[in-house]
Amino acid sequence: MRKYIATAAAAVFLSACTPDENPKNVILMIGDGMGPAYTSGYRYFVNDNNRADFRPTVFTQTLVGNASTFPADPDSVTDSAASATAMAAGVKTLNGAVGVDADGQPVDSVLKHAKQAGMRTGLVATSEIYHATPAAFVAHNANRGEKHAIAQDFVNQRHNDMPLVDVFLGGGRKYFDHDETALWQKLEADGYHRVDDFGALENAAGKRNLVGLFADSGLPYAIDSDVPDRLQRMTRAALASLAGSDEGFFLMVEGSQIDWCGHNNDIACAMKEMGDFAASIEIVLEFMKANPDTLLVVTADHDTGGPSIGREGSYRWMPKVIRQVRASQGKLKEVLLESEDIAADWARFVDFPLEDDEIASLVSAQQYSRETKARDNDPKSLYASIADIINRRTGTGWTTHGHTGEDVQVFAAGKGSEQFRGNQDNTDIGKKLIALVRN
Amino acid sequence: MRKYIATAAAAVFLSACTPDENPKNVILMIGDGMGPAYTSGYRYFVNDNNRADFRPTVFTQTLVGNASTFPADPDSVTDSAASATAMAAGVKTLNGAVGVDADGQPVDSVLKHAKQAGMRTGLVATSEIYHATPAAFVAHNANRGEKHAIAQDFVNQRHNDMPLVDVFLGGGRKYFDHDETALWQKLEADGYHRVDDFGALENAAGKRNLVGLFADSGLPYAIDSDVPDRLQRMTRAALASLAGSDEGFFLMVEGSQIDWCGHNNDIACAMKEMGDFAASIEIVLEFMKANPDTLLVVTADHDTGGPSIGREGSYRWMPKVIRQVRASQGKLKEVLLESEDIAADWARFVDFPLEDDEIASLVSAQQYSRETKARDNDPKSLYASIADIINRRTGTGWTTHGHTGEDVQVFAAGKGSEQFRGNQDNTDIGKKLIALVRN
Ligand SMILES: [Zn+2]
Ligand SMILES: [Zn+2]
Repeated sequence: MRKYIATAAAAVFLSACTPDENPKNVILMIGDGMGPAYTSGYRYFVNDNNRADFRPTVFTQTLVGNASTFPADPDSVTDSAASATAMAAGVKTLNGAVGVDADGQPVDSVLKHAKQAGMRTGLVATSEIYHATPAAFVAHNANRGEKHAIAQDFVNQRHNDMPLVDVFLGGGRKYFDHDETALWQKLEADGYHRVDDFGALENAAGKRNLVGLFADSGLPYAIDSDVPDRLQRMTRAALASLAGSDEGFFLMVEGSQIDWCGHNNDIACAMKEMGDFAASIEIVLEFMKANPDTLLVVTADHDTGGPSIGREGSYRWMPKVIRQVRASQGKLKEVLLESEDIAADWARFVDFPLEDDEIASLVSAQQYSRETKARDNDPKSLYASIADIINRRTGTGWTTHGHTGEDVQVFAAGKGSEQFRGNQDNTDIGKKLIALVRN
Repeated sequence: MRKYIATAAAAVFLSACTPDENPKNVILMIGDGMGPAYTSGYRYFVNDNNRADFRPTVFTQTLVGNASTFPADPDSVTDSAASATAMAAGVKTLNGAVGVDADGQPVDSVLKHAKQAGMRTGLVATSEIYHATPAAFVAHNANRGEKHAIAQDFVNQRHNDMPLVDVFLGGGRKYFDHDETALWQKLEADGYHRVDDFGALENAAGKRNLVGLFADSGLPYAIDSDVPDRLQRMTRAALASLAGSDEGFFLMVEGSQIDWCGHNNDIACAMKEMGDFAASIEIVLEFMKANPDTLLVVTADHDTGGPSIGREGSYRWMPKVIRQVRASQGKLKEVLLESEDIAADWARFVDFPLEDDEIASLVSAQQYSRETKARDNDPKSLYASIADIINRRTGTGWTTHGHTGEDVQVFAAGKGSEQFRGNQDNTDIGKKLIALVRN
């Protein structure tokens, strides 16, 4: 009996690795900047009132492993470009490099391999679609800052005389509507349908080649947006378009602005982005119930901000206070900079009232910022004063306005998900995904 | 074929879950304070010179999941007592509580269940053996500070007229050699053998009931110790004693001082403790090659310090600088407080020379600390100045001198290890361990 089981188990393992067992659809979802504290924090953010009766989140349900994220630069913490290139192409590269290796040579992404294998392809982001993370799946540029050139790769990188990406949804009208390069006109000539608002997106599900550009650059933060579910809407539309025919597809969905909230050390902003990202993952898991021949991998490219649950000797973290903040710290700064009544204007956006010493610090920081036009990272600025109040009240620590290098978590579900168990490098994620779309 | 495989896979799964398939030996290793940044950092600490040719660590090899750690106190970050009670007995309790539930009622630990099932039992720690983590496996006290009472439970908690713990090794002579309670004399009457130094420990492997007490309270930090491999030596001795007969055993090994280095925001100290802990895990994995009927689970009780790889906008972390520090920050403070030549005394313990502005800050902090007898957490103290230099030079961020609430990692190997995959609560670890030692 013992021997029989061992042999059968080996057969199960091998069968999962044979090429004919590849999933039909492969979906990669990247929470930009979503280090381990973000997923733990998000669970407390949605669960704090009755911890004895914990509801699982999409993250607790699908955790399978970790990934290391270091770039090719020695002793360095990665940026989004190097990490996205690792996950897209299975190759370590330098910070700033998009779709090229450390010598600047172009590398083929899983999206390109999928297209060559006859699959359909999609990219979704809440940043500009030519921002580092989505860019690494289609463009080749040693400098992520060359956004106009990267946008051109959405037209110029082609297979069978068509662009590589069938469906892309996000921000970034700026370079697609640029007169000289006329990128949108070229895509239109290729037969693409375009929408510029979420109402039109609802009606575009039947379109096989679809461009959605919902802002000139990045979309507004979920916490400040009148479409706080914008990633969910784009994810649903991308699935509807890509699953409309029978070829199978590769789709990358990025929760881009978790990272931006992290750079701003803005915990309420980050938790709202986590909510939109988590709900988008739920949409994919729901899709997979009807389409079990699908692999979902969810991970992050790095941590941003080094946030911690608890700070400065206090053993408390207050999700209920985070939920009382209804604007990004950047928006609060804009409002309070012009304010004649700080306590009253604060109360328009934040449900906990200010203490006297907090009002005094905001008044003094307002004057300093008006007089010096201080940048947000100046510790005496109005922005810093607002951030300090919210981070102290919520118990949130931060170590940086940049990225940090701890391993990120890896979540997976569906066909082939067992391959992502345990610890791996971010390049291993790219290599495994490429193997899974090649046939 | 398809159906055959599915059935066989189900058989494999079921066979791992039937009670008669319990492992003979169960080993739990707890890195106190070992949040996710510690294991990532340790990998870079031992690997930075040739990252393209990464050597795996015991952590990358065995990662299987995560665990949440919150205590019964609302909105709170856990301490070691509540988290150890969760892992020992599968029960949420209040911070400070050892082996009792949130109502103060005693709860049975996996160690007690193991003893009742006829297994042998052991506890190893680099702290006092009656410190919160090991204490939760044998004692019952609503207040972890009652160390004398907790020490008495090592004698008074009994099964079949013998103490519950067959082998315990660590610090804590103070209360065992206390005249009034005569704890050691009682253990001696029960037939226990005692050693007080590591030389004697080598020769005690054959002893069935063994007490090793190597310091009055906690052992010295590995980085300051003339026995930097003390956890490895204790782990090897505990295995030799417990595996000497055929009953099977439960053993808990704690890397206690990872936490203490974290409280001190001392990264060189923490990496040395990680090294001793990792090498102790390797000893267990080696033991398991000859004893495959063994389960190993490795985890942490919480994160300490909120450390990050990178800080304050810098995308660099410098393991090679960490390796140049050969003393704890506490020892450096003691030396520099009395120093007449700070640069020269610094150079006795640290291999990177000080810049002029660093010397100036140390001289000024020395004077301040001499005049005010400042505590280490005073930002103007000599201790804070030393910590600031080392943390800036190495690129290490910290958010607190306390604990933080991110989920910790779970590592497992051997028989039954698949049960610890994915996300779980720390109480689930306790419940699973208890199920695995009961027959
Ligand atoms: Zn970033
Ligand atoms: Zn601690």
